[in-house]
Amino acid sequence: MSKISFSSDYTKGAHPRILERLAETNFEQIDGYGTDDYCKSAAEKIKKLCGTPEADVFFLVGGTQTNQTIIDMLLKPYEGVVAAQTGHVAAHEAGAIEFSGHKVLTLPSFPAEADSADGSEAPSAVYSDQVGKIRAKDLKDYIDTFYGDDNHEHMVFPGAVYISHPTEYGTLYSKAELSELSDICREYDIPLFLDGARLGYGLMSKRTDVTIQDIAHLVDVFYIGGTKVGALFGEAVVFTKGAPTKHPVPIIKQHGALLAKGWLLGLQFDTLFTDDLYMNISKNAIEMAELLRKGLLEKGYKLYIDSPTNQQFIVMEDDRLKEFSEHVRYGFWEKTDDKHTVIRLATDWATTKEDIDELMKFL
Amino acid sequence: MSKISFSSDYTKGAHPRILERLAETNFEQIDGYGTDDYCKSAAEKIKKLCGTPEADVFFLVGGTQTNQTIIDMLLKPYEGVVAAQTGHVAAHEAGAIEFSGHKVLTLPSFPAEADSADGSEAPSAVYSDQVGKIRAKDLKDYIDTFYGDDNHEHMVFPGAVYISHPTEYGTLYSKAELSELSDICREYDIPLFLDGARLGYGLMSKRTDVTIQDIAHLVDVFYIGGTKVGALFGEAVVFTKGAPTKHPVPIIKQHGALLAKGWLLGLQFDTLFTDDLYMNISKNAIEMAELLRKGLLEKGYKLYIDSPTNQQFIVMEDDRLKEFSEHVRYGFWEKTDDKHTVIRLATDWATTKEDIDELMKFL
Amino acid sequence: MSKISFSSDYTKGAHPRILERLAETNFEQIDGYGTDDYCKSAAEKIKKLCGTPEADVFFLVGGTQTNQTIIDMLLKPYEGVVAAQTGHVAAHEAGAIEFSGHKVLTLPSFPAEADSADGSEAPSAVYSDQVGKIRAKDLKDYIDTFYGDDNHEHMVFPGAVYISHPTEYGTLYSKAELSELSDICREYDIPLFLDGARLGYGLMSKRTDVTIQDIAHLVDVFYIGGTKVGALFGEAVVFTKGAPTKHPVPIIKQHGALLAKGWLLGLQFDTLFTDDLYMNISKNAIEMAELLRKGLLEKGYKLYIDSPTNQQFIVMEDDRLKEFSEHVRYGFWEKTDDKHTVIRLATDWATTKEDIDELMKFL
Amino acid sequence: MSKISFSSDYTKGAHPRILERLAETNFEQIDGYGTDDYCKSAAEKIKKLCGTPEADVFFLVGGTQTNQTIIDMLLKPYEGVVAAQTGHVAAHEAGAIEFSGHKVLTLPSFPAEADSADGSEAPSAVYSDQVGKIRAKDLKDYIDTFYGDDNHEHMVFPGAVYISHPTEYGTLYSKAELSELSDICREYDIPLFLDGARLGYGLMSKRTDVTIQDIAHLVDVFYIGGTKVGALFGEAVVFTKGAPTKHPVPIIKQHGALLAKGWLLGLQFDTLFTDDLYMNISKNAIEMAELLRKGLLEKGYKLYIDSPTNQQFIVMEDDRLKEFSEHVRYGFWEKTDDKHTVIRLATDWATTKEDIDELMKFL
Repeated sequence: MSKISFSSDYTKGAHPRILERLAETNFEQIDGYGTDDYCKSAAEKIKKLCGTPEADVFFLVGGTQTNQTIIDMLLKPYEGVVAAQTGHVAAHEAGAIEFSGHKVLTLPSFPAEADSADGSEAPSAVYSDQVGKIRAKDLKDYIDTFYGDDNHEHMVFPGAVYISHPTEYGTLYSKAELSELSDICREYDIPLFLDGARLGYGLMSKRTDVTIQDIAHLVDVFYIGGTKVGALFGEAVVFTKGAPTKHPVPIIKQHGALLAKGWLLGLQFDTLFTDDLYMNISKNAIEMAELLRKGLLEKGYKLYIDSPTNQQFIVMEDDRLKEFSEHVRYGFWEKTDDKHTVIRLATDWATTKEDIDELMKFL
Repeated sequence: MSKISFSSDYTKGAHPRILERLAETNFEQIDGYGTDDYCKSAAEKIKKLCGTPEADVFFLVGGTQTNQTIIDMLLKPYEGVVAAQTGHVAAHEAGAIEFSGHKVLTLPSFPAEADSADGSEAPSAVYSDQVGKIRAKDLKDYIDTFYGDDNHEHMVFPGAVYISHPTEYGTLYSKAELSELSDICREYDIPLFLDGARLGYGLMSKRTDVTIQDIAHLVDVFYIGGTKVGALFGEAVVFTKGAPTKHPVPIIKQHGALLAKGWLLGLQFDTLFTDDLYMNISKNAIEMAELLRKGLLEKGYKLYIDSPTNQQFIVMEDDRLKEFSEHVRYGFWEKTDDKHTVIRLATDWATTKEDIDELMKFL
Repeated sequence: MSKISFSSDYTKGAHPRILERLAETNFEQIDGYGTDDYCKSAAEKIKKLCGTPEADVFFLVGGTQTNQTIIDMLLKPYEGVVAAQTGHVAAHEAGAIEFSGHKVLTLPSFPAEADSADGSEAPSAVYSDQVGKIRAKDLKDYIDTFYGDDNHEHMVFPGAVYISHPTEYGTLYSKAELSELSDICREYDIPLFLDGARLGYGLMSKRTDVTIQDIAHLVDVFYIGGTKVGALFGEAVVFTKGAPTKHPVPIIKQHGALLAKGWLLGLQFDTLFTDDLYMNISKNAIEMAELLRKGLLEKGYKLYIDSPTNQQFIVMEDDRLKEFSEHVRYGFWEKTDDKHTVIRLATDWATTKEDIDELMKFL
Repeated sequence: MSKISFSSDYTKGAHPRILERLAETNFEQIDGYGTDDYCKSAAEKIKKLCGTPEADVFFLVGGTQTNQTIIDMLLKPYEGVVAAQTGHVAAHEAGAIEFSGHKVLTLPSFPAEADSADGSEAPSAVYSDQVGKIRAKDLKDYIDTFYGDDNHEHMVFPGAVYISHPTEYGTLYSKAELSELSDICREYDIPLFLDGARLGYGLMSKRTDVTIQDIAHLVDVFYIGGTKVGALFGEAVVFTKGAPTKHPVPIIKQHGALLAKGWLLGLQFDTLFTDDLYMNISKNAIEMAELLRKGLLEKGYKLYIDSPTNQQFIVMEDDRLKEFSEHVRYGFWEKTDDKHTVIRLATDWATTKEDIDELMKFL
């Protein structure tokens, strides 16, 4: 009944400091729709941290709402958004992008076998650290086809590029990779959008050279995930050079991403961006994931993906898995064959060393 | 700076019992998207209260999201939703209904002058208690035109009827009026949808004969507002005879109305529907509104609308208003002429007698 | 069986010269999608006639497609189109505007009774020549409300203005009225769009001071109707200052308004704009309507609207109408009471004096 | 200048018999929107030919309009349409399907190299006759994933299956293949939609065992292409078991697929389905393609695809192509490498033996 759970990183409430501040401010009377001082304060803190004083910051309800809203804001009617075929907007949003009228133009995200074969850094991983990402060459080749000869007006133009960091597979872009994508987007004047639903876990990875300032300067818009990183819910969207429209609020509202009591979001992000709370709790998830990873390798588990963040993927025999599932809730990922399953084990901002020890008993 | 505020009923957080339960359950690990036990428990309580065991209950993020999602679920592509011209979906949702592809077909909602002239019950009100409502005769006449002769295929068919209760003007349908609308809808097999963003304040009005059970039996779908009635956010949708689609979740998701941590909504409604909390706190708003109304009439204010719920509307001279606004935050409603303004004063679940006393000082 | 028909102006094929040219060019092999020389030639002729060398001209399939496409091109996502409540886009396009995501914001188009009462010019008409039109004052007042105070982000912004000329009731704007609307639109930087489905019949009216050059200089986009004025089908859209998008073709295609064999449209308009054919055949419809009008007044019929174009509206007793309908096909307009019906009698580019004489026998 | 053209099959007008009938009926006065007797007559002929008396037949403007309308009619809001990645709806409709809110779910359509290696029937073709088609196994596997475990509500459900016959590559399904697809669709209650923009060329192929009656009994909806097969424009949609909605007309209208003068479409199809005209002119295209194919093989050209219909694909050296293009208009398909290009040569209903002889001179 009360199994230990590593099934995902959005199974708990919020950091206690957030709950405290909600209680403290509960009877203040605050104006709605994000016009309040908590939103302003949180936005200022984020802009200062990012080093982008000209940015516009909005606080939206959740991840799918945010992806749908931003992409629809960025695209012209005849444009689609380029994404990895494994990207959240391509695969797991119930068609929300198409619902708002746009095609998701997918690029392959799995490396060729040759790529992963030489993965000297990750000898026990099936896939290298490239899975879930789009590659600069693929992107450039794709966009190029729309400029090579005269008439592509019966196809869908690439009008924005979506990447997630960390990706849905826990992998990260390097600063060099991100710069390359950014350069291509700027060459063709196509906005680059980074989905940071798990941004903290990327920024605090031991194996990243990408800072939030790097992101703020390399992309046109990104969001800082709250739902999966310490908030009850909410995502902070940063248009690094200002919003692409004079009236973002009605657009946010049409897409279901506007909260009447917007200050609830501002207050949470204000709390997360006070005293480095966001980074500190993200760091905890990474440290716990490292512990888990070390334990898995010691026990001889094969890592399915070489993930440097809070999501770890292993292959397990189905007989073992059946027993395991009596004690632990995990994320089902996919079947590799009739007898093996890939599962996800995710740590989060609140995972404790005791949780990992407990988990290890069943592995 | 810290003015007293009667500007709206969504300026405060949540009932303290909700904050307590959020804290108590904060580190439980709960499955997402409304599949959890808190949602189940809240749904059961609501179904039991309504006397509709076959109902489907969903918990959505906010009012506009809910209106957009339900209306899109009810309508066929060539259909529109009938609403009062003052209805929230017609006037104040930034085009969210049209964004999802449907026309709002408006009926007049202001009574003819002759109607209000005889308003013996409300001698000091400019408008009678009919404002904001649609009338059975208007509805029937409108629908009838689509059946009178053979071809209306170039017009938009009435495919659902939207009413709000209380309306945006604080007025209420009587049981007889609601029954009449319901009869017409059933005669033509058109679903009737009741927006209950402020439902509690309607149910607890001293001048209503409509119960939640009446509503549940007379309409096809309604929602119980949380955002404005004691919850941090969230609305509980009740399809009284079951959902009109096999897969409501992806539709809710496409419209931005799905919360990843769905249990946050379930938990709030479970709390509100334990020990009559929802009704009790709604009753407080009504009692405070009655106090306010009494005070206003005593001071000789003219009520703009004869509202039996928590929203009260008065006409104020602009000079007076300027001074008033230095002490009190109010809702601007409209100008009646160059020198007068209609303002809204709203009580809520947390308004105290002291708040009213304080307000009265400035009136 | 072979009744004489005055039911509408799109009941016949095309001017014989068009059929001849279709036959002449039938086996030429021509590139698709409007890239051909016939489209180019027709566009040049239209631009020259309008005196707008910088215009972009497109040939679209039909009226509803054209309205839907243009309006969606002009509007931002959070904007709606302002139209008379009687406007085609508001009332008779099966929700096509809403299908593409936008609200139609309606202004009243029927004059107050007082207005028509003094109609000395049209003593026998129930309504003056204002019906179907929007008035400058109403438009300005409406737009003004969006600039009067700070926040209308929960309403739908007026993003374009739609007028029809002739209107659906056969009435026409004067040059002064059109200029006034144009001035308001330019003051607020809102594009003005003129639906000219029956443009020829407006331009050739005996009671107009508006030329096609006036229109081209006063509006941002209009179209020259072909379907109702001598073509098999098709409308010529003129963006007087150039198209508002870099890629109109995919937008036209998404809205179903693009014809694969685009030259069929170009060829028709090239024919219509050679040797003043379009104007000459439009003139015929007007002359026949004048004959009809004269005959009607002589016979004592009451004109329902004082229409200066090809559509004439009369009130008929239902008993008379029954008999009349055995000989003539007419357009049903509306019931005025239990015993009277308003009917439309429309002439067109091919109506003959013999047709009118024949019709007169039954009146 | 007046080069010979084999660039596509929609470069000419209509069969002369159609032009004659347009002229004959030009001054009849006919009711609009497909309610006329020509539409009725054409529909009856088609239903009789197909052996589906219960079918509903509609005449729509063009191919993209038809695909968009039908798919939107078939799908629920949370569903997408399954298509080959090379399918017209996936690749060449400017995002028209997504514009109406739905995702195109693509299956691979290129055979693995091993498949084509053994292609004994077509030794000179790079690709076997499978290109452009979806395979029953792929379809079943894809659909199965949505039934394998419990929750796919965050993905887009397969709600209809789209195939083209002939495909965009000129290939054809065998009756066995079509039956297999049909069986899978019926097993899962998913409608099967066949795009017959070039249907005649498929039916008259020398290498097909599929009749129009087979199609009518195996699919839920298909259309008989007119634009590419002898009509000026227009497609005849056949819902083999009746339309899936009570009001198809407003839906057709919203998608830009409705013609005001609907009889222009009915008259054309009535002509095409009188005295086997449609089949006879289709047969001509096939005979000319066979002549062309024979000539190409004799001259040693490598066929890129083994096409049994009117579209033939060859690989040409770029130097040769440059010279060739001075005499012949062709369809550019794709580059195979730096020095070679795949081109399409299409015959049609009006291609003559003289055209082929002329073309051969330049090959």
